[in-house]
Order: sequence, then C-alpha cells, then structure tokens
Amino acid sequence: MTQRDPYLLTPGPLTTSLSVKQAMLHDWGSWDGDFNSVTAEICERLLDVAGGSASHVCVPMQGSGTFAVEATLGTVIPPTSKTLVLMNGAYGQRISKILDTLGRPYLAIDKGDYHPPRGDEVAAVLKEHPEVEQVVVVHCETSSGILNPIKDIAEVCRQAGKRLIIDSMSAFGALPVNVAELPCAALISSANKCFEGVPGFGFAIIDRTLLSASAGQCHSLSLDLYDQWQYMEKTGQWRYTPPTHVVAAFLQALREHEAEGGVDGRLARYSRNRDRLVAGLREIGFQTLLADEWLSPIITTFLSPDSPAFQFRRFYEAIRARGFLIYPGKLTVADSFRVGCIGQLHDEQIDAAVAAIAEACLELGLPNPLPAPAAAPDNLETV
Amino acid sequence: MTQRDPYLLTPGPLTTSLSVKQAMLHDWGSWDGDFNSVTAEICERLLDVAGGSASHVCVPMQGSGTFAVEATLGTVIPPTSKTLVLMNGAYGQRISKILDTLGRPYLAIDKGDYHPPRGDEVAAVLKEHPEVEQVVVVHCETSSGILNPIKDIAEVCRQAGKRLIIDSMSAFGALPVNVAELPCAALISSANKCFEGVPGFGFAIIDRTLLSASAGQCHSLSLDLYDQWQYMEKTGQWRYTPPTHVVAAFLQALREHEAEGGVDGRLARYSRNRDRLVAGLREIGFQTLLADEWLSPIITTFLSPDSPAFQFRRFYEAIRARGFLIYPGKLTVADSFRVGCIGQLHDEQIDAAVAAIAEACLELGLPNPLPAPAAAPDNLETV
Repeated sequence: MTQRDPYLLTPGPLTTSLSVKQAMLHDWGSWDGDFNSVTAEICERLLDVAGGSASHVCVPMQGSGTFAVEATLGTVIPPTSKTLVLMNGAYGQRISKILDTLGRPYLAIDKGDYHPPRGDEVAAVLKEHPEVEQVVVVHCETSSGILNPIKDIAEVCRQAGKRLIIDSMSAFGALPVNVAELPCAALISSANKCFEGVPGFGFAIIDRTLLSASAGQCHSLSLDLYDQWQYMEKTGQWRYTPPTHVVAAFLQALREHEAEGGVDGRLARYSRNRDRLVAGLREIGFQTLLADEWLSPIITTFLSPDSPAFQFRRFYEAIRARGFLIYPGKLTVADSFRVGCIGQLHDEQIDAAVAAIAEACLELGLPNPLPAPAAAPDNLETV
Repeated sequence: MTQRDPYLLTPGPLTTSLSVKQAMLHDWGSWDGDFNSVTAEICERLLDVAGGSASHVCVPMQGSGTFAVEATLGTVIPPTSKTLVLMNGAYGQRISKILDTLGRPYLAIDKGDYHPPRGDEVAAVLKEHPEVEQVVVVHCETSSGILNPIKDIAEVCRQAGKRLIIDSMSAFGALPVNVAELPCAALISSANKCFEGVPGFGFAIIDRTLLSASAGQCHSLSLDLYDQWQYMEKTGQWRYTPPTHVVAAFLQALREHEAEGGVDGRLARYSRNRDRLVAGLREIGFQTLLADEWLSPIITTFLSPDSPAFQFRRFYEAIRARGFLIYPGKLTVADSFRVGCIGQLHDEQIDAAVAAIAEACLELGLPNPLPAPAAAPDNLETV
C-alpha cells in the first residue's frame, strides 16, 4: 500500500514507516489510563532525547508546528518583555509575524534569504539593547536548507544572561541538542519531522522554572502551554481532545527512532542521504545554493538552470510521475527548488530519486551539460 | 484488530470504522494536488450537509474542537462588539472563558448545569441590551446530554437582527441543521464527532459576507480563520501543515456518512442506540437526569444510585474490563455518569454495553433493586 504512495522529499509531512501508520488502526479514549500512559512515555522520551529530564518539562500542543511555536512564545514571553528575533528565511519571518499579532515588542536581525545569523552580531545587538530578555532562532531554516549556528548563539545568550528559544521544528531528533548544556530555555518541534511521526501536534521542551512563572500570560485559551502542562500534571490527560491516533503513531515513531540508534543513528542516515543526493544532482549539473559547511542533513536548495526549458511545474510533474514529490524554492534572490532527505528514505530511494530527476531533465529537453543558474546569489562562497 | 479495542461510549473520541482508520495508511504531501482535492471535497460535502453551499464557506482548523471555536470567535467577532453567551454546562462556560481570554465584551445567561436557555429569555436580554451583536449557543451540551432549542433561539436572533453562532461540536452530522434557513452566521464542529472521523481538526461553516469582513480581527496567527480561508482560496492548501492522515480519514468518514443516509440515517441509528440504552439502564434501575424530550441522541446522563457500594472508579473499571469505556458525570448538583451512543455502535454493542453495566452492578455488590439517586435535582420534571 505504502509502496505505491509517492515518496515525500520534503521537510514534513514526510514518508513514514508502515508500522508507524499501522499504530493508527486503534481507537483510544483520550481520558483513559492506557492513553495517558502513551502521552507520559512520549514526554519522557522527548525530554531524554533533549537532555532536559532534570531541568525541563515537555508539553505537547495540538495543531501544526506553528501552533506550538505560537503557544510557546505566547505562554513564556511576558507581554511587555522584549525579544530579539534572528531571521534568515520564512520561519524566522513567521516568528516575527506571531509577535506582531500578539503585540509583543521585538527587535530583529534579518539576514535575508540564506545568510546565517552570527554570534558576534547577536552579541552586538544584545549589548546595544540590554532590555532584550530572550532571543529566538530557527535551528534549520528549511526555506534555504541552512543549519544555523545555534551553539555560538547559545553561548552569546549565556554570557549576556538572556533566555534562548529555539525553533528546532525540522532538526530535533536528527541533530544533537542538549537543552541543559546549551543552555536553551525552550525548544520547539513537531511530531512529523525527524522523529518521523505523522502530522497533528507539536511540542515544547521548556525550562521548568520558566514555565512555572508563566501562568496567565498566554493570549489564547487553546494555545496556553502553562494550562496544558498543569492539566496534564494533575490528570495525565491533554486539556482538550488530542489527536489520539497521531499520538499513538508518534510513540511507535519514537521507538523506531531509538531502534535506529537515536539522534546519532538518524543523523548518520540523513547525512548519507544528503551526501548521496547532492553528489547525484551535482553529477547531473545542478548547483547547491549553499557551500557544503552550511548544508543541513534535512533539505537542500538547488539553483534552477538558466534555460527556458526549465519550468518548475513541469519538472515537478515529471518527477512526480516517477514516484517522488519535491518542493518548490522559496528564495527571493534566485530561482531554485528544494529536495528533502528526511523520512523513510534510504540509499535505494535516494538513488531512484536522483535517477528520476535526471530523467525529468531529459523529458523537459534541458541541454546537456546543464546550463549554469541565471545568477549566482551574492556571497555564495562566503556564506 | 479494532474488535479488541474497547468501545468508546463517549462523545468523542469515539469508535470509528476500520475503513476510516485504514484511510490513514498512506502518506500525503500537504501541498500536492491530490491532497488539495481531498480538502476541497471535504469542504464541499460539509457545506452541503449544512445547507450552506450558496451562502456560507467551510474553513477547517487544525487542533481540537475548542481550537475551532476559539478561532471562529476570535476571527468573526470584532474586538469591541458585545456577545451574549448562553450557558448550561461546561461548553457554554468554555465559550465565556475564551471571550475572557480574548478580552472581548460579553453578557451571559447561565442556566446552571442542565436547564435549557429559552427563546423568551434570550429575547428579553436582547431587548434590554440592544448593543449585543451576536449570540453564541451550544447545540448539544454534552456535560448533561441536553439538546438545546436552537430553532427557537435562532428565530429570536433573526427577529432581533443578531448574528447566531452555534457550537454544534457534538451534534452536526446527526442532527439536522440548515444554516441558511435558521439562519446561523457560523456553525462550528469537529472531525471526530457525528461524522465519525478521528480527532485532529475542527471546522467552521461561516456566512461568506461575515467572514469577508473579518480580516485582521483575530488575536492569534495560527487560529486566524480569515487567513486560513484566503490562503486556501488562493492555493487549495491549508495555511500551515494539516494533519494529513486525519484529513484523509475524514473524507472516508464523510463517504460512509453519506452511504448511511446522511444526517437522517445517522440520526435514526443514534436515536435507536439511545432508546435502547435508556430502556436497558432504566430496566436495571438507573434514572436519567433529564425528561425524555430533552435527551439528545448523543450522550445521556444517568444519576448515580445512593449506595456506598457505588464508586464511579470501580464501576468504570468493571465496565472497562468488559470492553466498554463510559464517561464520568460533570454535574455540580448530583452524582452522575454519562454514556454516549455515537460512533460505530449498533444494536449488538448497545445490548452488550447494557449487559456489561448490569454485570458491573453485581460485581460492585449494589443492592437489587437499585437504590434511587441521593437527591433528585430540582425541577427535573419541568426541564
């Protein structure tokens, strides 16, 4: 059944294992002890993966990852407290949009489409604006595929005594993070990214002291993570109906994550997928947006060749007809497309995807060798 | 597989068909045309069931039903506009809590635990408070199981020129509603109630003119139904990642709803379930909280017998051991428990549930005949 579905070469929803999907073939009472045990085990496992068992709590939140991000910002940031948002793509912009909607004050460092925010830039802004109390950064910005330098940024925050909030939506589970060591006040992620569950909820790993002081701050009833946490502590249940089947599937996904060797095992497979994919597409003649050191093992942006024969829609459909779904680009500076390497993808699928992309180039009548991109983005080599 | 799961005698999550769950054995790209068709078909079908195809739009929202209620109130009620909330249980109270959190002004008619709000009461308050612009009512208040008289209330709203918003979470799909005829400005429900999908999203059927005038009113980015609608109109996609598997299951559930005869067919089965259940439990000696005319075909509240041998936790576990999950009571005035009759329940399951409850009474050592409840609630006969 699954084999006939197209493989999703995207940063979520992604291709999940059949056993994860089969965990959804049961109905659960959301107030029943059996289901409460599922939720409790999920939270314990996530805290353990994040290195936060002693210092943090894990609170799940219904909805997409953005719901969990909004819930975290709305709950833990006091209404008049100033935030520094680090932006280099769509997800950093979304964080500023959330703060705009909530009417909470913030500053931003906007590095454009794909340049990483650097520690020294953050340090300079924090020095100039001592009123800032927290910094928010996106771990892997999937709009370009860049892996942001969160260790450097965490160190700057630690020195300046600021809270760090990490949107690790598409990275947690495959990239090592230790919230206690970094340190990180809150880390947000979702069920259907590197843990390879199905979409339907997100979660936040939050410093226990910080969350304890967050009662009554949230702008929303549904998205109040403090209330969700308190209710769960008291009853073992989610405050409002959880996506029971999705939650059950996620526990299965966490067990498969552990069986693959946890974060190390998954990082190894995803890195291998990325290396194989990048090598294969470079062989065809495509160029990556970023230099190798910034390529995440999550998703990679390739620049479109400068040819009238290259139309993304036709390219997408030609690859789709061969069983793979890729992602459009999101850059303002250059035509591009993106190919993800997370989910249930192994050598066999990556090789077949590269072959499908090569065949799509032929089908579109692209010249061989492939023309270079129209314009190399600025500073490509120094990024 | 499903047969071994306990049957859920509750108003959601509920027992779904195996074929609905099997629809989750596929992965979908949430931006792909195939998935967009699923979303579009769901919205069209829901509008059709609600009688709103010509006048209303259907907008889904990730999360539990409460997320959809908060999204609707936050999106369509202008920030300074006054609302009248009709309360007779937990869900009416939750609506007032949402408005409290959002800081939006409202009045309430609070009828306590289980008395219905009446048309003449609503008319009197609207006359006294002409500044009220919308009335919110819960269709079936599952905290008592009462079916509120929405036709009378709609007529009063129509005459007074007020917008009516109906939280029809646990009723839509099994009770006939026609949003154009009532009329009703917005009706809110969820995937895992009478349509018998799995939990993970809700939806609102909203008057097109009203929603068109609702840009920029929402207090939340994630819960903004206007933005969700606009994005969907432009792209066919949900604005943020949808619970793809849950959505696919819901389309299957809608097809099965239609095959059963739509609202009429489902109402017939649920009514039969309720009648059989109430007759069976009365035979054992239990009393219903409400007189027959107010009993919904969704869930029924039974009063606990006045005996030290009756402990809800033990009663629940004894019934659970026999394959059925019931629901605790939610009344402040009397000890009670609730039994639902929606979901994939037919004569066979209802009869087995009644037998399980009878056996549980024996196991708990309850006297035969069963003692009456400790105190009959006030006005029981006149409710």
